[in-house]
Amino acid sequence: MDVFDVLHLDELSHGLANLSMFPYFDMAHYIVSVMALREQPGALQVSRVSPLACWFSSMLFCFGGAVLSAIMLAEPVVAPLSNSTSVLLASIIWYLVFYCPMDLVYCTAALLPLRLVLSGMKEVTRTWKVLGGVTQAHGKYKDSLLVMIAIGWAKGAGGGLISNFEQLVRGVWKPETNELLKMSYPTKITLIGAVLFALQQTDYLPLQKHHLMLLYTVFTVVNKSRMMLTGSSTSPFAAIESAVYKTLFTGHSPYAALTGEEEKPCIDNRTAKTAASTADKNKESTENGGVRKRSPASPVSGQSESLNAKDESGNEETKSCKKTE
Amino acid sequence: MDVFDVLHLDELSHGLANLSMFPYFDMAHYIVSVMALREQPGALQVSRVSPLACWFSSMLFCFGGAVLSAIMLAEPVVAPLSNSTSVLLASIIWYLVFYCPMDLVYCTAALLPLRLVLSGMKEVTRTWKVLGGVTQAHGKYKDSLLVMIAIGWAKGAGGGLISNFEQLVRGVWKPETNELLKMSYPTKITLIGAVLFALQQTDYLPLQKHHLMLLYTVFTVVNKSRMMLTGSSTSPFAAIESAVYKTLFTGHSPYAALTGEEEKPCIDNRTAKTAASTADKNKESTENGGVRKRSPASPVSGQSESLNAKDESGNEETKSCKKTE
Amino acid sequence: MDVFDVLHLDELSHGLANLSMFPYFDMAHYIVSVMALREQPGALQVSRVSPLACWFSSMLFCFGGAVLSAIMLAEPVVAPLSNSTSVLLASIIWYLVFYCPMDLVYCTAALLPLRLVLSGMKEVTRTWKVLGGVTQAHGKYKDSLLVMIAIGWAKGAGGGLISNFEQLVRGVWKPETNELLKMSYPTKITLIGAVLFALQQTDYLPLQKHHLMLLYTVFTVVNKSRMMLTGSSTSPFAAIESAVYKTLFTGHSPYAALTGEEEKPCIDNRTAKTAASTADKNKESTENGGVRKRSPASPVSGQSESLNAKDESGNEETKSCKKTE
Repeated sequence: MDVFDVLHLDELSHGLANLSMFPYFDMAHYIVSVMALREQPGALQVSRVSPLACWFSSMLFCFGGAVLSAIMLAEPVVAPLSNSTSVLLASIIWYLVFYCPMDLVYCTAALLPLRLVLSGMKEVTRTWKVLGGVTQAHGKYKDSLLVMIAIGWAKGAGGGLISNFEQLVRGVWKPETNELLKMSYPTKITLIGAVLFALQQTDYLPLQKHHLMLLYTVFTVVNKSRMMLTGSSTSPFAAIESAVYKTLFTGHSPYAALTGEEEKPCIDNRTAKTAASTADKNKESTENGGVRKRSPASPVSGQSESLNAKDESGNEETKSCKKTE
Repeated sequence: MDVFDVLHLDELSHGLANLSMFPYFDMAHYIVSVMALREQPGALQVSRVSPLACWFSSMLFCFGGAVLSAIMLAEPVVAPLSNSTSVLLASIIWYLVFYCPMDLVYCTAALLPLRLVLSGMKEVTRTWKVLGGVTQAHGKYKDSLLVMIAIGWAKGAGGGLISNFEQLVRGVWKPETNELLKMSYPTKITLIGAVLFALQQTDYLPLQKHHLMLLYTVFTVVNKSRMMLTGSSTSPFAAIESAVYKTLFTGHSPYAALTGEEEKPCIDNRTAKTAASTADKNKESTENGGVRKRSPASPVSGQSESLNAKDESGNEETKSCKKTE
Repeated sequence: MDVFDVLHLDELSHGLANLSMFPYFDMAHYIVSVMALREQPGALQVSRVSPLACWFSSMLFCFGGAVLSAIMLAEPVVAPLSNSTSVLLASIIWYLVFYCPMDLVYCTAALLPLRLVLSGMKEVTRTWKVLGGVTQAHGKYKDSLLVMIAIGWAKGAGGGLISNFEQLVRGVWKPETNELLKMSYPTKITLIGAVLFALQQTDYLPLQKHHLMLLYTVFTVVNKSRMMLTGSSTSPFAAIESAVYKTLFTGHSPYAALTGEEEKPCIDNRTAKTAASTADKNKESTENGGVRKRSPASPVSGQSESLNAKDESGNEETKSCKKTE
């Protein structure tokens, strides 16, 4: 008799596992995704210049995970388009968010309480997507933990992982940054989820599937709500990440000096200078929008900036909406 | 007894539907495609520096539709290469257009009457390609109108849709523009064709296939010839597009002011300024070649410029050829 | 009784053909590949900023051929990941090369004698990969020589051919150069190998498979060793290439003047000037790292520079390692 029985959570987790994502949770996912697109710099302009590019971008935000995992598994990338109901629903939401008279839909959905609920519901769909990806990969590649993690991650965080190419649709190209170089919070939490579900699927994790679903869902929803309410952007894994990073990836290597250790660098100055000046050039040449400043320090410290920046832009938009009302 | 019988067009349309594209129409398509590549800025230089990159680029111009639809349907992208006869034909044409002694082939084909005939024949192949794509998608995804449109469009206008990546082969990268952001005339007419054939295939359009083929082919050929002869670049759909755009996509939204309406914007000035300065930067940083000036006005007005630019460059080339003769 | 029997090479070639690549040759391939990544400008910084991006880049260096040929044949791109043993081996080597305490592994492997042996072993794996690709394509597309060459080439030189996208993972974007525009020596030798093995497979080349394997392997290993020992970068095909180029690709065409011939150009000065100034702009705007200077001369002459540059950077690294010891 385990802790789930004691806390009478078994029924709850069964109920959650049988929850249907369609239509309410899917709708919340589409609304939050399209709003995230709208808040990208330049997206509103694109929506005026080319509604088609804007629609295509929105679909990549909504179905990016399905598209990416289809590419990885050599399945038709048009398959998500063949689900007419979902595409229709997402398209209606796209239209309302971008072109609704008086901007009513966006301004309403951007109100904090409603946005909180929608974001929470979107987090719930993440569990289903990650699990779907892991299960699909398990069916094709029985023993490969790595493939399961990759597909689960792709399905859950596809929109972020293909963001470089989604931006290209809108005429934006920021090669100096991507989700692998600097992971955002949603990408990170999805990766962790993919690892957990893959371990569960291969029986390395002694938990039942519906229990893990409950735990993971509660964690993501609570954490997302906390971050939205407090405006805090400290990742709950910052401490662990920092420890792992310091243990595994600093070594006694040429660049150790740059990460705050005392060893002498074993590369000569010429190389170091070249590297530094290259980095400077990169900074200078890429000042359009929210460009990542690549610093050779721990990946954790830098993240807070970008999250703050995101929050600010969100607040700005919300403010502008309130003005009109 | 319908209008086709009255006008004795039934036999004509049957004859057209049974027309074989190979080899004459395919050849015309390859010639016009390779000439279009040759007229891209920088393409001649590439043909001297790296014949292989030039050949690969030409193949993407000739078989871009097949490649793109293969990617979308998860079929091998090398499949077009396996049709040795077509590839050989296209390669010979590529060689003659780029490297023929005295530049005879290009200069001859660039003469207006011949070019007119070749362009007309190329337009005919479009009908076959769009129809092929729609039929192929119909076989795989019975009820999905959207997939049929997507595959038909990809097959007919593939070269344009993947132009960003085709340019990359030649060392050119213009992320600020693509066919979704600013559709060219061929892409637009192909999209319309894909919609019509998809509607016909699903019996929403009360027309027989060979009748629609005749109508669509005649329309594209006549329209292309008109545009080439008059040098006019006004799209025949400009009025409809403008009306649809104004009805659906202007709304009462933050950016309405920029599209010429009187409502007050509901975003504060800071955001607007940032957006504007970003746009300026984009303009400044991308002045190599025919770069699109992104204006938040109707997508129709801006198009004429780029078409004019294209015509000019075409005329220039023709002039240079005449000089030599 | 042919020359192989006379020289008693038949047994040797049989022995070579039955050689297993796993684990020693594969390991050499991974070590040399990961070291090549480490010597890319900016790679060490990326390894500190984002170990995950660095790992993914390394996997693309190690398994790029498998990934590219999977894309071309519409097979799952995650398939290489499902071979757990290979991925584990490559990951361990990646970790040791980038993060080993005292940088021991990299500095040891960078010693000339050891590097020579490892590079030689890596060249041996090339034969197997090219042959594997050609055989795989032969199984699917019986008669298509072109597909066989394409897949053999992709499998043997995949890492180079997808280098633009591999760089993108590390936040580097150099659209002005790619392996088609300016082929490196490994890409060139792999293409020749793919052509030879495809001709052998279709019985156009009157040689037995294991004899061709022996000849090709000996040639690549000897040539690679010669280039590393003498620091010479003259391609063994420079003369042939130059002759072919002059015969086929100079023609009597607008740009002939630029390639050193006496014919008058048939384009007017305006176009030529524009082209030249564009080239200048390209040069100016892309000075970060080993950027190719695009010259409209023969592709052969320019190559030596870039190879020299590569050698220099290699020597530099080796020097810096020796310093520490």
